[in-house]
Amino acid sequence: MHTHSVIRFIGILVFFLGLSMAFPFIVSWAFGEHDALPLLYSMIIVMALGVFLYVIARNQEVKVLGHRDGVAIVTFGWIAAGFAGAVPYILSGAIPDLTDAYFESLSGFTTTGASILENIEGLPRGILMWRSITQWFGGMGIIVLSIAILPFLGVGGMQLYKAEVPSPVVDKLKPRISDTAKTLWKVYILITALEILLLFLGGMPLFEAVSHAFCTMPTGGFSPKNASIAHYNSSYFDGILIAFMIIAGINFSLHYKLLRGDLAIFGKDPECRVYLTVVFLFILLLTFNLHGTVYASLAKAFRYAAFQVSSIITTTGFATADFDQWPALSKKILVLCMFLGAMAGSTGGGIKIVRIILLAKHAYQEIFRIIHPHAITTVKLGGKGVPQEVLSSIWGFFILYLAIFVTSAIIMASLGLDMVSSFASVAACIFNVGPGLGMVGPTKNYLLIPSLGKWILIFCMLVGRLEIYTVVALLIPEYWRK
Amino acid sequence: MHTHSVIRFIGILVFFLGLSMAFPFIVSWAFGEHDALPLLYSMIIVMALGVFLYVIARNQEVKVLGHRDGVAIVTFGWIAAGFAGAVPYILSGAIPDLTDAYFESLSGFTTTGASILENIEGLPRGILMWRSITQWFGGMGIIVLSIAILPFLGVGGMQLYKAEVPSPVVDKLKPRISDTAKTLWKVYILITALEILLLFLGGMPLFEAVSHAFCTMPTGGFSPKNASIAHYNSSYFDGILIAFMIIAGINFSLHYKLLRGDLAIFGKDPECRVYLTVVFLFILLLTFNLHGTVYASLAKAFRYAAFQVSSIITTTGFATADFDQWPALSKKILVLCMFLGAMAGSTGGGIKIVRIILLAKHAYQEIFRIIHPHAITTVKLGGKGVPQEVLSSIWGFFILYLAIFVTSAIIMASLGLDMVSSFASVAACIFNVGPGLGMVGPTKNYLLIPSLGKWILIFCMLVGRLEIYTVVALLIPEYWRK
Repeated sequence: MHTHSVIRFIGILVFFLGLSMAFPFIVSWAFGEHDALPLLYSMIIVMALGVFLYVIARNQEVKVLGHRDGVAIVTFGWIAAGFAGAVPYILSGAIPDLTDAYFESLSGFTTTGASILENIEGLPRGILMWRSITQWFGGMGIIVLSIAILPFLGVGGMQLYKAEVPSPVVDKLKPRISDTAKTLWKVYILITALEILLLFLGGMPLFEAVSHAFCTMPTGGFSPKNASIAHYNSSYFDGILIAFMIIAGINFSLHYKLLRGDLAIFGKDPECRVYLTVVFLFILLLTFNLHGTVYASLAKAFRYAAFQVSSIITTTGFATADFDQWPALSKKILVLCMFLGAMAGSTGGGIKIVRIILLAKHAYQEIFRIIHPHAITTVKLGGKGVPQEVLSSIWGFFILYLAIFVTSAIIMASLGLDMVSSFASVAACIFNVGPGLGMVGPTKNYLLIPSLGKWILIFCMLVGRLEIYTVVALLIPEYWRK
Repeated sequence: MHTHSVIRFIGILVFFLGLSMAFPFIVSWAFGEHDALPLLYSMIIVMALGVFLYVIARNQEVKVLGHRDGVAIVTFGWIAAGFAGAVPYILSGAIPDLTDAYFESLSGFTTTGASILENIEGLPRGILMWRSITQWFGGMGIIVLSIAILPFLGVGGMQLYKAEVPSPVVDKLKPRISDTAKTLWKVYILITALEILLLFLGGMPLFEAVSHAFCTMPTGGFSPKNASIAHYNSSYFDGILIAFMIIAGINFSLHYKLLRGDLAIFGKDPECRVYLTVVFLFILLLTFNLHGTVYASLAKAFRYAAFQVSSIITTTGFATADFDQWPALSKKILVLCMFLGAMAGSTGGGIKIVRIILLAKHAYQEIFRIIHPHAITTVKLGGKGVPQEVLSSIWGFFILYLAIFVTSAIIMASLGLDMVSSFASVAACIFNVGPGLGMVGPTKNYLLIPSLGKWILIFCMLVGRLEIYTVVALLIPEYWRK
């Protein structure tokens, strides 16, 4: 590992995170809130820390970064962002406890949306804006990660997307990253701006429109309102958010292609077709289940079903209803949505639809082989054969996901959480959803989880967000061997 | 498919099942119970049915049976056994409802042990003996299936065990089956006899000793007592059953090798080492969790922990405690035990330890590949390389297991079961355990499950028991294509 390069990169990241605190500082100052000064201090401290890291590692210019460096930059980058983001929470007194502040901050940067805050509306607007910004930046990070970095690291089958970015130069990540990132960030900013506009035109105050849009595109789900989107009780806002959550669950390179004029791209892409079909079917199923049991009117059942399905399958976590009170069938489908997740290359978490498709096709092929033991078959996606190496990587990804999930849920149970809460808190964090069931249900928060449990969940958020391999690779001795 | 051969084979099976009803008939007659006559009628009807099936398919001698025939014989064989076994329940009036009678019968032949009976002790001894016999026969079927048939069909990675049986002649199943079966059945009968002896010497009435031993070796878990093994409250019986349950979870070809003089075989076999270690660790963990919370004495905590862990990981399902009342950590470990199961080649259900080992090794290999992308690596078991084809088959097995599990749990929830019960009832049936949690907990039964739910669970028992592929292969159109 080129330790100097990794540290220098993280120094740059931390410096810019500090610099970006200027925006919530301005918001706070404009509204005359009392958190302007703490935000200014945070900004200076974090920027200074970034400069410090950059300076201590400024020697030894290294042009070619290898796989190990990529893994270290990604994982330590996110961990460092979590610390930088916690500074304003602590200095402003909004979240004085380090564990809680780090939990809230990393929940932002991993676009999870799990919160330890009891009374969100009691916080000054500067801090609230910073909270939304952590998610928006997290989303930008994820886009670069999933479209420009993971395909080259060969993580979890993301090799599939190598072709999306021209001329794959495996060991030279830098130029690719900045080109792809710039293009996709333009798309991301554009869609965010459109959402702000539509929410604002519908009558949402600008501050809240910005906050919500900043947390929709990264499928984050933080809200400046205690009751989340339920606060507004407006079918217009529900509709806008449903649409933008579903959009945020689509691979951003498809949005780019759409904007370049390929209007049929969503129908052509095999993953997108399955994604939209699954969303549609689950909404129907929940509407059917909720109509008569929870909501007397069909329209209302549809509205709430559509919102919660879109919110959970894209792992956003906005809520308009306390789905923990819904019938077991609806709850099970929502838990399934958490596992599935949205499309690869989107900002959503979970296992991702493309992996589920490939796992299912592989399973079918194996049944086929029982009947025709000597047949030679290949798993195909969109008419093209999928290399064995990609399938193998996805299998490993899947089993690691499950193993970490089960182990974490058992640890949470050993800390005293009941069956459903221990299971749901891990699911909501590892799949980067935010709200779960039981003691972490949509009307509750993570404050009462024991401190050790919070760190387990922090690990889950990180490992889920960074597609498992990037974090676990650092945990095996082989990584650190010369 | 050679339909005639399949029907003839099933005719023979049904005939012998009918013939075997002579044993419970004699028991009933000896005890002067009122179910002697219904058992005699059942015997005649089932034998006649067997003869009928044999006769209608007696033409067209086919020597070489293919893969499709193997799949059909196994699946339809078990389905037919379920029907044959239900006849005495219905005719004796013990279980008048067809769904319930079939549920109880197939639960026996699949060695699941899930019961719809409310008051077991109210039944006559002939019927109780028949209930135990269905499990004992089921166990014999499983040994043949997993050691002599599945390796040749290439089901779920069982190709690994081809070498266990000399000279693999893929398309000629018949001679291999009878040779291997005879050898292993001797081992099975021997261990059963030893268990009967030890229970009887400890003071258990002979009828009950036979009944329990008949349900231990197949990891079945039916008991003629309402309270299962808790009825005796005896550490001697608990100890004997713990030992024999753990033995029943070991690959029967290892028992054969042990009896042939290879005394260190359990330590040499990589799967057996992991199996025994996992059992030991889980017992320790549960003892630690139960001591102080449920049981004041450490010895008592250990005794109940050891019994429940052995019972659940081997998917037997005997109970000495209502573990549904235990802390969430213990419950989670027991649910994990259901998923894991015991060794391949044993009579236990679940995913099986060897598959878990290979999945874990594969996952490690994939992490390794992130760090060394150009390294060429192979998954090894006991020093020997495992072919890609075997891993691929296990991956398919695993995803199909999960897919059927999740779908079934969702259907059970749609029938009105709560979160835990819908999940646990499917787990307890697909992994062939028997008792679950919630409304199907160890002190409860399956009577109150809606009729459609019972058929879903019957499907789960069958699909889990026959290692998934054997059943699902029949469900895809490709199977029926000429």
